[in-house]
Amino acid sequence: MTRKSADAAATAKAPPPSRRATIRQRRERAAYDRETVHAILDAGFLCHVGFVFQAQPIVIPTNYVRVGEELILHGALGSRMLRALKDGAPLCITVTHLDGLVLARSAFHHSVNYRSVVLFGAAREITGAAAKQAALAALVDHIVPGRSAGARPPNAAELRATRVLAVPIDEASAKLRQGPPVDDEVDIALPFWAGEIPLALAAGPPRPDPKLAPGIALPAHVAAYGRPAGGAARP
Amino acid sequence: MTRKSADAAATAKAPPPSRRATIRQRRERAAYDRETVHAILDAGFLCHVGFVFQAQPIVIPTNYVRVGEELILHGALGSRMLRALKDGAPLCITVTHLDGLVLARSAFHHSVNYRSVVLFGAAREITGAAAKQAALAALVDHIVPGRSAGARPPNAAELRATRVLAVPIDEASAKLRQGPPVDDEVDIALPFWAGEIPLALAAGPPRPDPKLAPGIALPAHVAAYGRPAGGAARP
Repeated sequence: MTRKSADAAATAKAPPPSRRATIRQRRERAAYDRETVHAILDAGFLCHVGFVFQAQPIVIPTNYVRVGEELILHGALGSRMLRALKDGAPLCITVTHLDGLVLARSAFHHSVNYRSVVLFGAAREITGAAAKQAALAALVDHIVPGRSAGARPPNAAELRATRVLAVPIDEASAKLRQGPPVDDEVDIALPFWAGEIPLALAAGPPRPDPKLAPGIALPAHVAAYGRPAGGAARP
Repeated sequence: MTRKSADAAATAKAPPPSRRATIRQRRERAAYDRETVHAILDAGFLCHVGFVFQAQPIVIPTNYVRVGEELILHGALGSRMLRALKDGAPLCITVTHLDGLVLARSAFHHSVNYRSVVLFGAAREITGAAAKQAALAALVDHIVPGRSAGARPPNAAELRATRVLAVPIDEASAKLRQGPPVDDEVDIALPFWAGEIPLALAAGPPRPDPKLAPGIALPAHVAAYGRPAGGAARP
């Protein structure tokens, strides 16, 4: 598929939601449809949030969960990032899954396989204990399915100490690369190995807290922890 | 260790390089010494670059290598990000390794183990074919040690089509969390499992390119591919 026809395929499924969310480099890797964007967001829980503070861009890693058409972020009340964002400062949230190393015959065509989403927008603050608690439980259960029922819920003081923001997912683009290297035709016969080394986040065996009281068994939600490829997966 | 004494420990080793690079939240997790910053940078190759374009923060994932006291970035000549950065626009580069999920008895004290670096600065463009080629070879060899000798080097046209930037690492902060959950004393006796689920990027078996000519064996640098914990590691 040529780059032009790939462009057509990507934009036929869903057009870019805005000018700033339109991918310009490697347009054949772009996607704007909701299913693709949601699937990439749901496969992870670590994002990088960009905002501007006194003309300086700042990028901070944090956890998220998608709830419907919003991403939920949270943190301490004093967080400089959340304070800047709660009043609607422009932000960019980027989620990236590294899926593999692409080794071509030419150094130039080396690449990585990945799935990423770049989201532009602004946050609103979620207030009210019940709404905050629901958002935080969704976050815990996204990261470890079933976990919120296996822990003490936040009390009133903990909820007050936590700021929760929601960011609408209405201006997002996805970018993906998959598959083997694409070498120039003239290089195919070169005597170099070419192929892919798959990568995925993998979970190791759980480590009980040294302070764990005797007789507390490993719960099913921890024993069964694993995520589909691209998120954390058991090796 | 209280937060205050941990602060003292972190800043005794090396003070923050600037006001904007001073970590304010969870200061006990901060480090500013060069060894810690370099070790975190060297353990990965994917960063998130933040810059400002028409008042909008933009965060883009890209690969990097540390060469001495600089990070090397590269991309296509037409890249909007590299065009913005080559003339010295303020940037922020963030590198994050996800090392584990921290399951506390209380939902509130759930956390993740991680190592991250946040770097402020501005880029300079590397020009000249030899300097560009050296930087790109360093990148390839950082991602897959030994690879640049196992591929065709870039030709003059490919070098011209590639922009290479260098960003000094002189204004960076590291932030780390490791170890088991830290619950409130009153929660330790609760009947909930607590502990850590380790996470690491893991490499699967190499997949040869379907177009690979017969008789090309898997080279040692691919067979041996693996990285220490925090980078890609064989499961």
